[in-house]
Amino acid sequence: MDAAEFRRRGREMVDYVADYLENIEQRPVYPDVEPGYLRSLIPTEAPMEPENYDDIIRDVERVIMPGVTHWHSPYFYAYYPAASSYPAMLADMLCGAIGCIGFSWAASPACTELETVMLDWFGKMLQLPECFIAGTHGHGGGVIQGTASEATLMSLLAARCKAVRWVQASNPKKSEAEIFSKLVAYTSEQAHSSVERAALIGGVMMRKVPTDNCFAVRGDILKEMVEKDKAAGLIPFYFCATLGTTPSCGFDSITELGPICNGENMWMHIDAAYAGSAFICPEFRPLLNGVEFADSFNLNPHKWLLVNFDCSTMWVKNRADIIGAFKMEPLYLKHENQESGRHWQIPLGRRFRSLKMWFVFRMYGLKGLQAHIRKQVALAKEFESLVRADKRFEICAEVILGLVCFRLKGSNELNQKLLKMITKSREIHLVPCQLSGRFVLRFAICARATESRHIQQAWQHITQLTFELLDDAEA
Amino acid sequence: MDAAEFRRRGREMVDYVADYLENIEQRPVYPDVEPGYLRSLIPTEAPMEPENYDDIIRDVERVIMPGVTHWHSPYFYAYYPAASSYPAMLADMLCGAIGCIGFSWAASPACTELETVMLDWFGKMLQLPECFIAGTHGHGGGVIQGTASEATLMSLLAARCKAVRWVQASNPKKSEAEIFSKLVAYTSEQAHSSVERAALIGGVMMRKVPTDNCFAVRGDILKEMVEKDKAAGLIPFYFCATLGTTPSCGFDSITELGPICNGENMWMHIDAAYAGSAFICPEFRPLLNGVEFADSFNLNPHKWLLVNFDCSTMWVKNRADIIGAFKMEPLYLKHENQESGRHWQIPLGRRFRSLKMWFVFRMYGLKGLQAHIRKQVALAKEFESLVRADKRFEICAEVILGLVCFRLKGSNELNQKLLKMITKSREIHLVPCQLSGRFVLRFAICARATESRHIQQAWQHITQLTFELLDDAEA
Repeated sequence: MDAAEFRRRGREMVDYVADYLENIEQRPVYPDVEPGYLRSLIPTEAPMEPENYDDIIRDVERVIMPGVTHWHSPYFYAYYPAASSYPAMLADMLCGAIGCIGFSWAASPACTELETVMLDWFGKMLQLPECFIAGTHGHGGGVIQGTASEATLMSLLAARCKAVRWVQASNPKKSEAEIFSKLVAYTSEQAHSSVERAALIGGVMMRKVPTDNCFAVRGDILKEMVEKDKAAGLIPFYFCATLGTTPSCGFDSITELGPICNGENMWMHIDAAYAGSAFICPEFRPLLNGVEFADSFNLNPHKWLLVNFDCSTMWVKNRADIIGAFKMEPLYLKHENQESGRHWQIPLGRRFRSLKMWFVFRMYGLKGLQAHIRKQVALAKEFESLVRADKRFEICAEVILGLVCFRLKGSNELNQKLLKMITKSREIHLVPCQLSGRFVLRFAICARATESRHIQQAWQHITQLTFELLDDAEA
Repeated sequence: MDAAEFRRRGREMVDYVADYLENIEQRPVYPDVEPGYLRSLIPTEAPMEPENYDDIIRDVERVIMPGVTHWHSPYFYAYYPAASSYPAMLADMLCGAIGCIGFSWAASPACTELETVMLDWFGKMLQLPECFIAGTHGHGGGVIQGTASEATLMSLLAARCKAVRWVQASNPKKSEAEIFSKLVAYTSEQAHSSVERAALIGGVMMRKVPTDNCFAVRGDILKEMVEKDKAAGLIPFYFCATLGTTPSCGFDSITELGPICNGENMWMHIDAAYAGSAFICPEFRPLLNGVEFADSFNLNPHKWLLVNFDCSTMWVKNRADIIGAFKMEPLYLKHENQESGRHWQIPLGRRFRSLKMWFVFRMYGLKGLQAHIRKQVALAKEFESLVRADKRFEICAEVILGLVCFRLKGSNELNQKLLKMITKSREIHLVPCQLSGRFVLRFAICARATESRHIQQAWQHITQLTFELLDDAEA
């Protein structure tokens, strides 16, 4: 394919993309396929000779689309949102064309520098304390990771490295392995599975901290666990707080937890993967109070801030902590300006992802982004009030942002049945969670295209299925 | 921006991309900016109100392009290639529109399934042993990682987990920390820095194995080191072989090393990030002989197989080894078809990257991809013969694929000076490496647009600078 054909095919693809997103409501949100469906639809081997582009495009509808869960359908209420916007898609096209691998400053100065400045822009939008802003002289700063999992892992590894240095400062003979075996990390029992995974990878113990009745970790319980571990000769070194947990969008009490971590010389990382985007609105910013105690902070614009996946933004208070943990400079990466390079992540190479942030921030403006967040929170509140008005149902966690946790009053089994009916009907898509041993349905406002009428329709659908379910149960 | 505006702006962006790539020769390959250049060109904060799209596009030329290292310029000979092709870019547009986060089968069946089948297609193109192919009943199979660094890390973590289980089977009382402290991993002294980094992350010792005069690790030396470590009570558990090292494109002798690893119960991972793509050509496939001994194998189509970054393909002989190492299934990810999900990587979420492979494999066909590899190898050979014809220069490592390592006969200082002149002139771009203590220039065939005339021109430029340099030295 030469440039001329790309011009033609590119235009067609732009139209295909616009058509897909404009008409996404007409597709069933959840696919009607069984595992292994795709293999039988395509050849078992790659072709020897080039194929026709038209055949490939035809196969997108024949092979791919029947197996797609449509995350951008207004009937998609599962997990948490995946961001999508036209400006981000345009920026991604540009990113693909430049196609630089930004593993050092010299490998593409614009890639490294725009990222630093975009993280400063974003940090200011979030009113992060000055210490997290790189500026021209700061010690902190931000970086784009692929996912929150990677940000959590990097923070845990940096904390581990710092803890080893700290212990060895007074006990120079202690081996790294010996120290590792004493290190203890903590996180909420409600934290994302990737946090526990980070500890597994890092080879350190991780304790799950019980939460209060708002599914939040409080200071006193962490303090108690830390004291107990210290008394047993262990070394508490890391706490991962969550703002906006995956099951219920609960908020750990970081104003209580932060001072404890600081006092105990423990690294506090904040995972606000979903909820973090809301902190650009003054009315939600108080949820981030206490961030000044954190060593690192992460949120995913690719969830809720209209920047297409992947773009997970992470700030650290002290760049040296995270760079120092893994820096290696073979000759082929050395450059006189190497200090401007960044090895703050697991992969060495990375795409020019900050272009997406730049396009989105400028095309929406802060006000436009705030309006997006507010609209989706309002839709969640609307759904909440529909649930509350129906005595057969209960709300299972305070609705603070765009997630509503609800269930039928009654057994877990009953709610499992309801979810099965919802999934089977394929009109809307949502997933469950477990809260205090109860099976709960999660209704997350996800797609940019979701409007009030979709919420109303979703609720009507759920109540219709409930009617059938309860009718069956009584029969 | 609504769909109608996206249609218009998308067409413009397609043209911008085509123009950029068609005229890339006219841009200086390496930017003339100093660190910090970008910050002063843009505001210090994000705008409150939406901006005009035309202003953003104007800023691409004003702010971004002056700081871009043009990886797809035919004058770019640094590092290793970053793949780029029009079909891959079209697929990426589609991937962005679908915008699913493929962390489980249910999250988007097509995303999981196309990936599995594409890895089978690709595995067959590489003539991988049957045990690496998932098929419908196999125990092995492939996965797309973001980068080779992640593939290496995943293999090391899986090997670590397996080693712990194996030791604990006969010594149930041994703690994980105790076992970690005895584990030893090995890799070539020529291996990529990410291999050493993986060991640092995993908290295990890593030994650098000296190479022979072809910069390859041989069996006898690994055997000797393993014996010595075992005698000291340590537990050798992992060897990362490299096919196509970063400095010189050297090839470890995996037919010798594989049986040693198998005999010692050590995991053998093969990192063929760059060179691996060449193995689709029958004449280069012998370089992969010995892969049958490996537990895992990785290469980057995003380097040399026309699939835009990021797309790093990894195969394992036994899926259970790598899945078992980290599997966690919170309720919000559970699904009746969860076995078809994949948690074979550090990030939980991932894009629909297999679309790029599908488009590229079909639009080029195996023959078209082979032609691309062969053309670039021929260009390297052409450059090699130019160097060999000039008695002032020497070739520093056998030219097997698309990389030529060369230097001026003389001091390291002289060669450093030459590289400085090359970098300063900005006509071509390349980076150095160190081989047996000698400062060497690496000339890698990178861009898809590179033709014989560019090679000739590059060599003319280098000899012109050499003339000036030696003239200066004599004066």
